[in-house]
Amino acid sequence: MPDARTTVRELREAMGRFVAERDWQQFHSPKNLSMGLAIEAAELMEHFQWVDSETSRQVGQDPNKRTAIGEEMADVACYLLALANSLNLDLSDAVLDKLQKNAQKYPAEEFRGKFAKD
Amino acid sequence: MPDARTTVRELREAMGRFVAERDWQQFHSPKNLSMGLAIEAAELMEHFQWVDSETSRQVGQDPNKRTAIGEEMADVACYLLALANSLNLDLSDAVLDKLQKNAQKYPAEEFRGKFAKD
Amino acid sequence: MPDARTTVRELREAMGRFVAERDWQQFHSPKNLSMGLAIEAAELMEHFQWVDSETSRQVGQDPNKRTAIGEEMADVACYLLALANSLNLDLSDAVLDKLQKNAQKYPAEEFRGKFAKD
Amino acid sequence: MPDARTTVRELREAMGRFVAERDWQQFHSPKNLSMGLAIEAAELMEHFQWVDSETSRQVGQDPNKRTAIGEEMADVACYLLALANSLNLDLSDAVLDKLQKNAQKYPAEEFRGKFAKD
Repeated sequence: MPDARTTVRELREAMGRFVAERDWQQFHSPKNLSMGLAIEAAELMEHFQWVDSETSRQVGQDPNKRTAIGEEMADVACYLLALANSLNLDLSDAVLDKLQKNAQKYPAEEFRGKFAKD
Repeated sequence: MPDARTTVRELREAMGRFVAERDWQQFHSPKNLSMGLAIEAAELMEHFQWVDSETSRQVGQDPNKRTAIGEEMADVACYLLALANSLNLDLSDAVLDKLQKNAQKYPAEEFRGKFAKD
Repeated sequence: MPDARTTVRELREAMGRFVAERDWQQFHSPKNLSMGLAIEAAELMEHFQWVDSETSRQVGQDPNKRTAIGEEMADVACYLLALANSLNLDLSDAVLDKLQKNAQKYPAEEFRGKFAKD
Repeated sequence: MPDARTTVRELREAMGRFVAERDWQQFHSPKNLSMGLAIEAAELMEHFQWVDSETSRQVGQDPNKRTAIGEEMADVACYLLALANSLNLDLSDAVLDKLQKNAQKYPAEEFRGKFAKD
């Protein structure tokens, strides 16, 4: 399972090499990358548009759809990694900080089984 | 630099704990998570909407904006990690596969400095 | 009911005046407007993120939510009108053409009650 | 120029007939329609992703691209019309209200040539 041994930096470096080999940094402004990220997020969403929420849990069981969904998730991830590279921003740091902040904003006892305050 | 030592699994587990502590798996269908991802991607994009592409490279220099942008990127990442958890899909594997596929689709010599074929 | 008597041109002109009075045409490039449209579409989607598909039909009954949803729909419409103005493109023409094209792509007999071919 | 003589209601009715003939109201929950709208908005944005803001003003001159852009705008409009039908919400009313509200939020003298307060 690559996730168990792959650091975020390794993924950022793999993406960084891909971009540098094509001299694409010139196109990779934060504005353009954020657009790419939103476009790929929409393509991912397309797989779940017409099924209801519960049924969407089964979509990932179909091998062909699973592969297609994985590719869209990879596209989203690649733009996110490219943006972290472009801004020189530590992604793990941002994620762990945000989870701490959200843990305070949504105390577990108060929000258990609820997505909003009563 | 946390990215240098944090594995994708560690981030997935941190997100997984946050969700489990609130019993939020019931809301985390792939359909809902893909919507959340697209919503956060749009909020990220908002930071760059009115500046032109080149100027957007400077936005990340402003400390307040940098923090806000990092938070939006974290939100995108959290939904992506939650979706990987929900689908039990290896994200590093998907990213590395996609980069290989894209390396064949966009040969470096042919696409250097260009984002499309002539 | 304003929809019964308001032409698309009247809405385009109202939007055009709003933009011209602020000298905002300089910001209203198709790139920026398409970003704005996607951002507002995401804000609209946010109202329905955590409810399931059927329940989302009730959201519009709540007067406060109905007003908020109407405002997000208006924001989407305003960017679409501004883009039609910026490109000098007839929106009604585009819609009626697309409906004809879709009527051929999805023949009623074949697609009745189905969103995809068997 | 159809925009000059086509009312919003006529467009809503054309969309309503298309949906009813296929018995698609069952899929047209506000949740699903808002996802469709966001997906089409992303496809529209794709036409302008890699060009800079100023250059995007020229994209609409190319006849093939103009047709493709018009089709994406029509897709966005169709989902917006379907959502107005699903919620039984007057779109012209919402747009004209929002423009009035925005005229107060962004007084012309103060915001002329600026997209934000100093």
